[in-house]
Amino acid sequence: MGSKRPDRRGFIKGGAALAGGLTLGTVAPALGQTPGSQTFIKGNEELVLYGERSPFVTSVRMQHPPGGRPSPDAYGLYFHIAAPLQDSVGMITPSSLHFVGTTRGGFIPEIDPREHRLMIHGMVDRPLTFTMEDLKRLPSVTRPHFIECAGNRSSPRYKTIQETHGMTSCAEWTGVLLSVLLKEAGIKGGASWIVAEGTEEVKGASSIPMAKAMDDCIVAYGMNGEAVRPQQGFPLRLLVPGFEGIFNSKYLRRIKVVDRYYLTYNDYGHLNRRDDPEGAALGMLIGPKSVITFPSGGQQLPDRGFYEVSGLAWSGGGAVGRVEVSTDGGRRWTDAEIKGTAHRMAHTRFSVGWNWDGQETELLSRCTDETGQVQPTRAQIAEFFNVPVGRVKGMDNSIQPWRVASDGSVHNAIA
Amino acid sequence: MGSKRPDRRGFIKGGAALAGGLTLGTVAPALGQTPGSQTFIKGNEELVLYGERSPFVTSVRMQHPPGGRPSPDAYGLYFHIAAPLQDSVGMITPSSLHFVGTTRGGFIPEIDPREHRLMIHGMVDRPLTFTMEDLKRLPSVTRPHFIECAGNRSSPRYKTIQETHGMTSCAEWTGVLLSVLLKEAGIKGGASWIVAEGTEEVKGASSIPMAKAMDDCIVAYGMNGEAVRPQQGFPLRLLVPGFEGIFNSKYLRRIKVVDRYYLTYNDYGHLNRRDDPEGAALGMLIGPKSVITFPSGGQQLPDRGFYEVSGLAWSGGGAVGRVEVSTDGGRRWTDAEIKGTAHRMAHTRFSVGWNWDGQETELLSRCTDETGQVQPTRAQIAEFFNVPVGRVKGMDNSIQPWRVASDGSVHNAIA
Repeated sequence: MGSKRPDRRGFIKGGAALAGGLTLGTVAPALGQTPGSQTFIKGNEELVLYGERSPFVTSVRMQHPPGGRPSPDAYGLYFHIAAPLQDSVGMITPSSLHFVGTTRGGFIPEIDPREHRLMIHGMVDRPLTFTMEDLKRLPSVTRPHFIECAGNRSSPRYKTIQETHGMTSCAEWTGVLLSVLLKEAGIKGGASWIVAEGTEEVKGASSIPMAKAMDDCIVAYGMNGEAVRPQQGFPLRLLVPGFEGIFNSKYLRRIKVVDRYYLTYNDYGHLNRRDDPEGAALGMLIGPKSVITFPSGGQQLPDRGFYEVSGLAWSGGGAVGRVEVSTDGGRRWTDAEIKGTAHRMAHTRFSVGWNWDGQETELLSRCTDETGQVQPTRAQIAEFFNVPVGRVKGMDNSIQPWRVASDGSVHNAIA
Repeated sequence: MGSKRPDRRGFIKGGAALAGGLTLGTVAPALGQTPGSQTFIKGNEELVLYGERSPFVTSVRMQHPPGGRPSPDAYGLYFHIAAPLQDSVGMITPSSLHFVGTTRGGFIPEIDPREHRLMIHGMVDRPLTFTMEDLKRLPSVTRPHFIECAGNRSSPRYKTIQETHGMTSCAEWTGVLLSVLLKEAGIKGGASWIVAEGTEEVKGASSIPMAKAMDDCIVAYGMNGEAVRPQQGFPLRLLVPGFEGIFNSKYLRRIKVVDRYYLTYNDYGHLNRRDDPEGAALGMLIGPKSVITFPSGGQQLPDRGFYEVSGLAWSGGGAVGRVEVSTDGGRRWTDAEIKGTAHRMAHTRFSVGWNWDGQETELLSRCTDETGQVQPTRAQIAEFFNVPVGRVKGMDNSIQPWRVASDGSVHNAIA
């Protein structure tokens, strides 16, 4: 471990014994002059170096699916980690609360960034190998983008939004456009796909169409103003904006330029379309999607009266163009206010004011993206695939209904 | 302390003894099948709940001014904490690295948000008291805003950007517009100022002109997607976009509507203008300002060749309109690229490409905001105040020159 890394022990109340090394001076207890009966958290050296949240803020991630058992095998633990969207505000997910998808990989590679390399090879004029320092010298972009696991969907078994929608998050990503690196390497005629490979057990490689690779993919070293977090692929992650989460390869180390779709373990969700890579490519896109984060399943309205109904919308097809909200089970729809700028392939915060009259009702939200795609109902998805509503599986961007009972309790309304 | 709060002990390597409680299964060492000689960080319960950064990422804040000694007194420690801007990417400062200004206050009030109240009183029709739950029911806004301490300025003594400019940071803030609360209370005729007061030792109150209070001030409970951090005023901070940091009252608990400027401890920097509150009010505004974060003092260019010169610009006067960069000590200036949207009163990332020829030179950046204000040179400020350049004090938004020596080392060029 890095010797300069602060050991974070959390908050120490004034007057209590200090567990950490205090180098800023002598500890003085809070005296009578301090206002009222306030207690104080002491500023010790650790909190100077790297601040922490309040001990009263206990919002944490959870294993996904809820109640599922981890599967220890030769490679360790298999689990996903879902973000507490019920507590979210704004557009950014704090890096510590960003969802994590792993496949046969509780293991996080411990990569020394000084040793890390990114190779670009295959059908290129000049195979290249970049150090992290090389990459940071190149022109960069900073853009907010969501990532979402294809398995992020509601179920009648799920009670909270963390269970139904917690496998998506949004961060401000910084890095080099992949197109800059590919142009530097020179793409040979006939090349039509890339295979992006990271240092991750099994789930390490994805095939991406060249048109996408040359458009808006980011070789990202920064996330929310600091280095990409280990669970998100430190030191380097490929962002493939709008594509399913699994395409956003972590611990990126190789990009091979090729002339066909390479079938990888990551295709397990697309196996039934292996004869149709272009169709599968189209199947990679997320959304349009939206969900009300407050009030959402498991929350409690204290009484009737005014509330701001707030939520998140996003789409793999581009920017969110419009969000509508219904507070009466879908009979009437109101255009929600979009908070700030609706960025392309980014979570977008929306809200509507709502006076709750104390009667049971259902709250719904519906996203339309800039290309005109509209978020479907669960019934529409079932009709499209010709299955019973209860059997809708896989990619499911359907409208999430929350039922508000007359006692103010909020429930997943999917029967 | 909250019983559900995770105790973060950091990363545990695969195969090493586990210090934390592991509830997800049996620990398996990394086997031969894992690629190459990688070691792995184990996903333990703590890292599921709340993720951490890589042990290789050691960027931390520092006491400000550098080398200064803390002043223990009856109230504890006096210190400021500066952000490591030399490591920054994008627009957002991670909450753990956000700068902190304290005055006679190493103490952070430990406030139970269930007990916290915000009172609005004075010259209002209906004095009101809000709980945190009340505030979160109201219509909210989410906006990126910088905060900057008035004492954030370069000095010939300072070597790094953390020393010269580390007392500013930028976060995505979420909360209720103060105007919503003031309208609800009803402002009486003749009221022209508010006094915002927080639970902070000494530095707890600021007078703010009513026009500003009714414009864009935010009573903020959210910061970068989660609750405001304790060092930033948990559970409630007043954001006064573009005003000096000291006006952004932490632990906000009272807003008094009044008909005159109230002199408070926070005015120590404005005392010479106490006969002129409107002039002092105008003096509250920050910037326009910019600084190159890379390459900056203390950094080292490994060799000649291409670099992205990257920096941050901001202004209390509104959005950044233009940033120019000079790589030859100010003879020629080039328009920098603005990354993403230039938000009002928010850090704005800029960059220019630069081919370093290995010769000694000076790098400069100059910000012009949307109102046409231009960042001055240090010589211009000295001329304006009729003092020698070495005596420029107080609010100093002057252009920061970084000297690149022929060996690639970078230095503060202020003589």
